[in-house]
Amino acid sequence: MARSINRHTLLCMSLSGRPGNFGTRFQNFLYEALDLDYVYKAFTTKDLPAAIGGMRALGIRGCAISMPFKEACIPLVDRIDDSAGAIASINTIVNTDGTLHAYNTDYMAVRRLIEQHALTTDMRLVLRGSGGMAKAVACAFRDAGFRHGYIVARNQVTGSTLAAVSGFTWIADSHGLDADLLINVTPIGMEGPEKDQLAFEHDAVQRARAVFDVVALPSETPLITLARSLRKPVITGAEVIVLQAVEQFVLYTGVRPDQALIDRAAAHALAG
Amino acid sequence: MARSINRHTLLCMSLSGRPGNFGTRFQNFLYEALDLDYVYKAFTTKDLPAAIGGMRALGIRGCAISMPFKEACIPLVDRIDDSAGAIASINTIVNTDGTLHAYNTDYMAVRRLIEQHALTTDMRLVLRGSGGMAKAVACAFRDAGFRHGYIVARNQVTGSTLAAVSGFTWIADSHGLDADLLINVTPIGMEGPEKDQLAFEHDAVQRARAVFDVVALPSETPLITLARSLRKPVITGAEVIVLQAVEQFVLYTGVRPDQALIDRAAAHALAG
Repeated sequence: MARSINRHTLLCMSLSGRPGNFGTRFQNFLYEALDLDYVYKAFTTKDLPAAIGGMRALGIRGCAISMPFKEACIPLVDRIDDSAGAIASINTIVNTDGTLHAYNTDYMAVRRLIEQHALTTDMRLVLRGSGGMAKAVACAFRDAGFRHGYIVARNQVTGSTLAAVSGFTWIADSHGLDADLLINVTPIGMEGPEKDQLAFEHDAVQRARAVFDVVALPSETPLITLARSLRKPVITGAEVIVLQAVEQFVLYTGVRPDQALIDRAAAHALAG
Repeated sequence: MARSINRHTLLCMSLSGRPGNFGTRFQNFLYEALDLDYVYKAFTTKDLPAAIGGMRALGIRGCAISMPFKEACIPLVDRIDDSAGAIASINTIVNTDGTLHAYNTDYMAVRRLIEQHALTTDMRLVLRGSGGMAKAVACAFRDAGFRHGYIVARNQVTGSTLAAVSGFTWIADSHGLDADLLINVTPIGMEGPEKDQLAFEHDAVQRARAVFDVVALPSETPLITLARSLRKPVITGAEVIVLQAVEQFVLYTGVRPDQALIDRAAAHALAG
C-alpha cells in the first residue's frame, strides 16, 4: 500500500470459517484509493467470544461476520440494527469506542437491489435455499412488501421455519411451479461440485420475468447464463457481494465511494 | 507495501499504554524487504486479558508488550521463557497454534550487547533507575556474571527491591560514587522535560571506562554526547531498541536478517 501503517491506522477485519480474499482485496483497495488510514485483514477463530472480545479490547474498528458465526455473534454485541434484528443474523459489527453495533449488509444490499432493479411487489417469487443468506434475502423481499411466493428447500425443518419467518410458503421441490421471479440462494452453480448445475429448470426460467442468483464466485452461473440468453433481466451475486461490501465500507469509514471507484474495487477484488 | 495483504497474511502487533511508531516501521520494513507474508500494527487497550485473549483467538502471531503491561501479562500466557522468567517481566508473546509463549527481548538484547562490547565482569557498575527496564538491564548484568555495583534510585521501595533481586547495592544518590561502567535507565536525556539533563555527573563520566544509556529517542543524549567527547566507549539506547526488535522479528518469523538490512530497517524506523 502507498500509505504505510502507523500507530493511528485503524484495523478492520473479518471472521469466517474459511476466510476468502474478496473482503480483504475490496476494502484495502478502497482505503488506498481514498487515502484512508485503515487496513483490513481476514481471520478465522475457534473461540468466537474471545475473538469478539479482542475486537472490542483492541479497538478494531469493524468486523465482517461470515458463516458459521452469523447467529452466534448476536449475544456478543451491544446493539443490533434493524437490518440484523429483522433476520436475527449479523454480518457486520462496528466498534465505536468499545460499543459494538451489529448490522446485516446482505439484507441492506438486497433491499437496495430490489429498488435499483425496480422489482415490483406483485411479482410471485420462488426462492430456493434455507440457510443464513436465504433468510436475509427472503426477509428483504418480505420487508419490501412482497407477499406471494415459495421457499423451496429439501430440508423441511429449515425450509418451513424460513417460510414461517418470511411469510412465504414452504415446498420441497420447485418442479412445475410458476414464478415471476426466480431466486437462487443455494450453492448450485458455485465453484465446486455443483458448478455446472442449473438451480431452476429451463422452462421455469423461460416463464420468469426476472432471475436473481446470489452465487458470486463465479457470478456467471449456468442460471444467469441461461437467463441472459433468454433476454431476462438478471441480478447477480456479484452485485450482492459488492453492494454489501460497500455498505460495510461506509459503516467503517463514513465515506461512500462513487460508482466508478466501486466498479474498480470490485473488478480488483473479484480477480483475486 | 509491495506485497498485498491476503487471507494467509499473519498479523503481529504491539500493546502499550502509548503506542509509538518504531516497532510498526521496523517490523513492516523487514517484512517487505524479505518478502514475508506478515503485517504489523500497534494497539493499546483498556482490557488486557481480553486483548491477549483476542490475540489467541484470532491467531495473531506475535505481540510486543510495553509499559504498563509487562508484568500484568504474566498470568495470561502459557509458557514463560527464561529471559522473561528471570525478571518476571514480559515484552514479547509468540502465539503458536493458540499456545502463548512469553519472552523478554530487552533482557536478551542487553545480554547480547554485554558480549558484543566485551564488557568484563570485573567492572564495577552504577545503574541509575528502578523501573521495568532497569530490572531487565540489572538482571542481564547479574546473569552475565557482574557482581559489584550500585542501583541508584530515589525511590527506596523500588530501588532496594531491584537491588535485592539483582544482587547489587541500593543507594539513593550516585554523587561521589566511583564506577567503571555507568548505566542510565531513567528518562533523563529522553525527548521531553529532561531532554537536556545529564544522567551522571561530568566527573563520574570522566572516571568511567564505559557508558551505557538505554534512552533511545533520541539516542544521542547529553550523557552519550559527553562520553563520546571524552572518548569513552558507549552503548546507546538505539542499539538496545533495535536489537530487542530484531529478537522479536526472529521469534515471529524464524528469519534472522543480516546486519546491513537491520541497519537499514533501524534507520527507517528511527526516522519515523
